[in-house]
Amino acid sequence: MKKANKKVKAAILIIGNEVLSGRTQDLNVSFISSWLNTNCGISVHEVRIIPDIEKKIIFNVLDLSKKFNYVFTTGGIGPTHDDITALSISKAFKVKYGFNKEAYSILEKYYGKDSFNDGRKKMAKMPSGSLLIYNPSSAAPGFKIKNILCLPGVPSILKSMIGNLKKYLVKGSVIISKSINLLTVESNIAKELEVVQNKFLKKVEIGSYPFFRLGKVGVSIVLRSASKLQINLCKKAIDKVIKNKKIKTFKKN
Amino acid sequence: MKKANKKVKAAILIIGNEVLSGRTQDLNVSFISSWLNTNCGISVHEVRIIPDIEKKIIFNVLDLSKKFNYVFTTGGIGPTHDDITALSISKAFKVKYGFNKEAYSILEKYYGKDSFNDGRKKMAKMPSGSLLIYNPSSAAPGFKIKNILCLPGVPSILKSMIGNLKKYLVKGSVIISKSINLLTVESNIAKELEVVQNKFLKKVEIGSYPFFRLGKVGVSIVLRSASKLQINLCKKAIDKVIKNKKIKTFKKN
Repeated sequence: MKKANKKVKAAILIIGNEVLSGRTQDLNVSFISSWLNTNCGISVHEVRIIPDIEKKIIFNVLDLSKKFNYVFTTGGIGPTHDDITALSISKAFKVKYGFNKEAYSILEKYYGKDSFNDGRKKMAKMPSGSLLIYNPSSAAPGFKIKNILCLPGVPSILKSMIGNLKKYLVKGSVIISKSINLLTVESNIAKELEVVQNKFLKKVEIGSYPFFRLGKVGVSIVLRSASKLQINLCKKAIDKVIKNKKIKTFKKN
Repeated sequence: MKKANKKVKAAILIIGNEVLSGRTQDLNVSFISSWLNTNCGISVHEVRIIPDIEKKIIFNVLDLSKKFNYVFTTGGIGPTHDDITALSISKAFKVKYGFNKEAYSILEKYYGKDSFNDGRKKMAKMPSGSLLIYNPSSAAPGFKIKNILCLPGVPSILKSMIGNLKKYLVKGSVIISKSINLLTVESNIAKELEVVQNKFLKKVEIGSYPFFRLGKVGVSIVLRSASKLQINLCKKAIDKVIKNKKIKTFKKN
């Protein structure tokens, strides 16, 4: 994996009517985003969820492809009629949609010649010039074309494949995060937190998130930065606020 | 609630670095989408997740506002420095950002005059001309301006408020859905399913989703349509396929 030593920005494009309708709870955004940051120093800056409609896929693939270093799509690469991601991306980039020889051979071997029906063959079809993302779980590969990396929608299969993305990605600076969990409410510390944020502007991003856990009401303060030193300095400033305001911290155990 | 007797289309805009970074698992999309369809006949056609950055909020609010009948935002309406949804939307629509008298009075009563500090007062600030979405759980109201309806990010608070949206929405045709769970794999029925889909084109939307449950591999076929009659006819056509191919159905119990 090459290293860019800079910010590498990504988008995720979830393709699937079932997620939009609320039938299926998406679990891929948080998994992909955490994995990309921890393993590749790549930050996700936008997510879109769109239906299985060709013109919508084409528009969003081209739009996000221009705006971000990488675009990760999930869904629509299976064998059924509503799986139109590969065909739509071929049209977006005006390249041929057809059998990828290596994918064809992988799938033929996996299913056996006699059981290799049209639906299964369809999963070997992709935009011409694609590189494969191998699938150790159910054989059907994902693919990369230009800066678009296409993954399946089923979370367990996606998880089994994600390590195989690494060779296609340039590494950025990993963002470190630190959480401070306080037994208070946001409005009690909002003013002081803003003062600290202004002091660390563009160095540390401070997020504030209310929580309700184990019958307790609290706030998680999350510090995020590429610099460990800045995080530590920022934490000291927040510790001072906590001490002055006599706020207790929340411990899970 | 008025009824439009037609398709009413919505978008959801999730505003929050914590969802993009993967730290927080979004639960609002599936809840809002299911609720809108079941209670209001409104379908969600696009979701975007964006960071707490003013120019991104302005761009996406204006863009989605033009494309859809309604836009539901979540997040960024609390008391801390990273809560910038209300200010950004004021800027998007070029209207004044200031105290809403009714919201101010609700919050002052809730906290008591002596505890009504600047952070808490901030939650009464919104775009001029906004209508309130009452919050029975933690007082701080959401608001509606033009076709944008702003809700908080915390799922439990959002859920407590959602019924109060109804009076601002025009009702569309409710989409009915029917699931058929089969003990087979997608590639075994892909061809036949496509034939049925072509027969019911623009009448019933057929989705196919693999599942792994209780140690069994299967496929959920989901039929969606505004017409119960068409769903029943489509189901009959699929039942025929199932019978011909001798596929067993999956029952949870």
